[in-house]
Amino acid sequence: MIKVNGFGANSKEDQLHALEFQRREVGPSDVKIDILYCGVCHSDIHMARSEWGPAIYPIVPGHEIIGRVTEVGNAVTKFKVGDLAGVGVFVDSCRKCKSCTSGLEQYCDEGMTPTYNGYYRDGMTPTFGGYSSTYIIDEGYTLHLPFTKNLEGVAPLLCAGITTYSPLKYAGVSKGHKVAVLGLGGLGHMAVKFAASFGAEVTMLSTSPSKEADAKRLGAHHFVLTTDKNQLKGLKMQFDFILNTVAAVHDMNQYLDLLKVDGKMLVVGIPPEDNRFNAASIISKRRSIVGSMIGGIKETQEMLDYCAANDIYSDVEVIPMDYINTAYERVIKSDVKYRFVIDMKTLKA
Amino acid sequence: MIKVNGFGANSKEDQLHALEFQRREVGPSDVKIDILYCGVCHSDIHMARSEWGPAIYPIVPGHEIIGRVTEVGNAVTKFKVGDLAGVGVFVDSCRKCKSCTSGLEQYCDEGMTPTYNGYYRDGMTPTFGGYSSTYIIDEGYTLHLPFTKNLEGVAPLLCAGITTYSPLKYAGVSKGHKVAVLGLGGLGHMAVKFAASFGAEVTMLSTSPSKEADAKRLGAHHFVLTTDKNQLKGLKMQFDFILNTVAAVHDMNQYLDLLKVDGKMLVVGIPPEDNRFNAASIISKRRSIVGSMIGGIKETQEMLDYCAANDIYSDVEVIPMDYINTAYERVIKSDVKYRFVIDMKTLKA
Repeated sequence: MIKVNGFGANSKEDQLHALEFQRREVGPSDVKIDILYCGVCHSDIHMARSEWGPAIYPIVPGHEIIGRVTEVGNAVTKFKVGDLAGVGVFVDSCRKCKSCTSGLEQYCDEGMTPTYNGYYRDGMTPTFGGYSSTYIIDEGYTLHLPFTKNLEGVAPLLCAGITTYSPLKYAGVSKGHKVAVLGLGGLGHMAVKFAASFGAEVTMLSTSPSKEADAKRLGAHHFVLTTDKNQLKGLKMQFDFILNTVAAVHDMNQYLDLLKVDGKMLVVGIPPEDNRFNAASIISKRRSIVGSMIGGIKETQEMLDYCAANDIYSDVEVIPMDYINTAYERVIKSDVKYRFVIDMKTLKA
Repeated sequence: MIKVNGFGANSKEDQLHALEFQRREVGPSDVKIDILYCGVCHSDIHMARSEWGPAIYPIVPGHEIIGRVTEVGNAVTKFKVGDLAGVGVFVDSCRKCKSCTSGLEQYCDEGMTPTYNGYYRDGMTPTFGGYSSTYIIDEGYTLHLPFTKNLEGVAPLLCAGITTYSPLKYAGVSKGHKVAVLGLGGLGHMAVKFAASFGAEVTMLSTSPSKEADAKRLGAHHFVLTTDKNQLKGLKMQFDFILNTVAAVHDMNQYLDLLKVDGKMLVVGIPPEDNRFNAASIISKRRSIVGSMIGGIKETQEMLDYCAANDIYSDVEVIPMDYINTAYERVIKSDVKYRFVIDMKTLKA
């Protein structure tokens, strides 16, 4: 039994006892997945520590889940025992609203059902995430994984991958576009890979000179140190899009100025406080600031198929379950290239 | 000779002596306009008082100008003596960049030449605005005015009109859309007229209960008091677009929450300090914040033709030139329905 520290409250009762939780039974349209790998997302830490509102304790984090189907309900048609399967950030939604019926379940009017730290549609059965041995989920919210190798590098695609793929697709990024990626972390490294793969000329904007070599290895054509105001000045009105992954409070104006007329800043990071920007920064060149959150089931499947076809994976550091507290501390210090992925064999050991 | 007070510096030299300025000569492609009416825009006050950076004194404000052509250069083809003609917020641009060649001169890479408080392309000849008897301008930056009545209500279309028409068009507002207009002033009253005319269901969001009757007279279908948090709560996720005209610092989050999935806040007001918004407010429903500034010559002409065809005018209070200082004070107190327009006959008297 492994305990995960840092849950806001300090009592032992509030700590995680991952193996103890009884999951729901396998329903007619459910698949049961034996978890192979689960990515460690920064939001796991925010939620485990009640930094995004009070968590539902006890909590089992993890929403970048891949594994193998071990059981299927009698109405299941899309999966069979032995298939690889993935679970992302949500596991259900109202299924009736315009967002749900148009493949944008993540924006469900009634709210999606999060993979953990939430309740199923009954409003009372808690969901438990992927730092665990199994997950039971409706097949309609389960992803096919057409991969034959590097499964550990597939897990983070379920959150970090789709979070960056979706806004780049929504914005129509393609050959001929100049795209800047702001921040090289779990999200940023996937954004560079996707933008480059879509044919764009990619510039990494970073505060760390040490990241230049890595940015270029990931596919960035240029690297600019944002602490060098002269370099930034030379980039005014250069980009069609900036994918902004920064989750700390920052001055948006200096980056908005780098966008061309009609340029768009695609925001996927959520700083703990309000962002600030001067209206003139967007008005003066008809720029937009566009928010985007993960992706729907259909688009997530499209992204996974695209990654399999184009050999795109997340760069990961595989860890055993009992390294999780150290991993959390390293995530907070941005000391990971670029995603921790838990090998779930180590939980069963 | 009329002096306009409030120019940052207090010396008499810094005051306006409108009739004294010598304008440039009429060049081959220029038209000379005898000014009939000039609208009073809030930006006139900001610029006259150096609130948007140091003004170029002496200054003649005014960029909502209409009049009659009295002289044309020998290469002029689009105007003849006796025509009605209009001048908006800019009078030249580089004519070469992508924005200029695609009819978006307002976003010119080298910067547009403002109608006043700026320099012509030579970088040294100052531009003087419409609180004056005449304006000399290149015909390519001059607007045709296909109006036969209510000329005083036409003048503000050159700034307040196009500033609201352009973003509504850019966003594709049409029948079936729900549009909220935030703030009922010079810009807001035009936004209501245009959005309603385009077939949208229009809601006025205002802090002043006294404005309800007027909002509905202008074409709004609904009126909501933004100080009533319960009313606002009931409007969550209701609008496709919010046209935000507010030029004071305000909480954007409570308005962003009113937008549907993929909803857009169209920002045309420039508060003196940074706007604030929480990234979650846009990420959670893929919302956008879109800036927009006036419009290009082609679109401004399109707007004027549309207004003439659909009987759309600005609601104005016509004033004599020597009322200007009182008018400024009243604009600052939002005590005008909805635009002051100077009758330029009173300048010559």
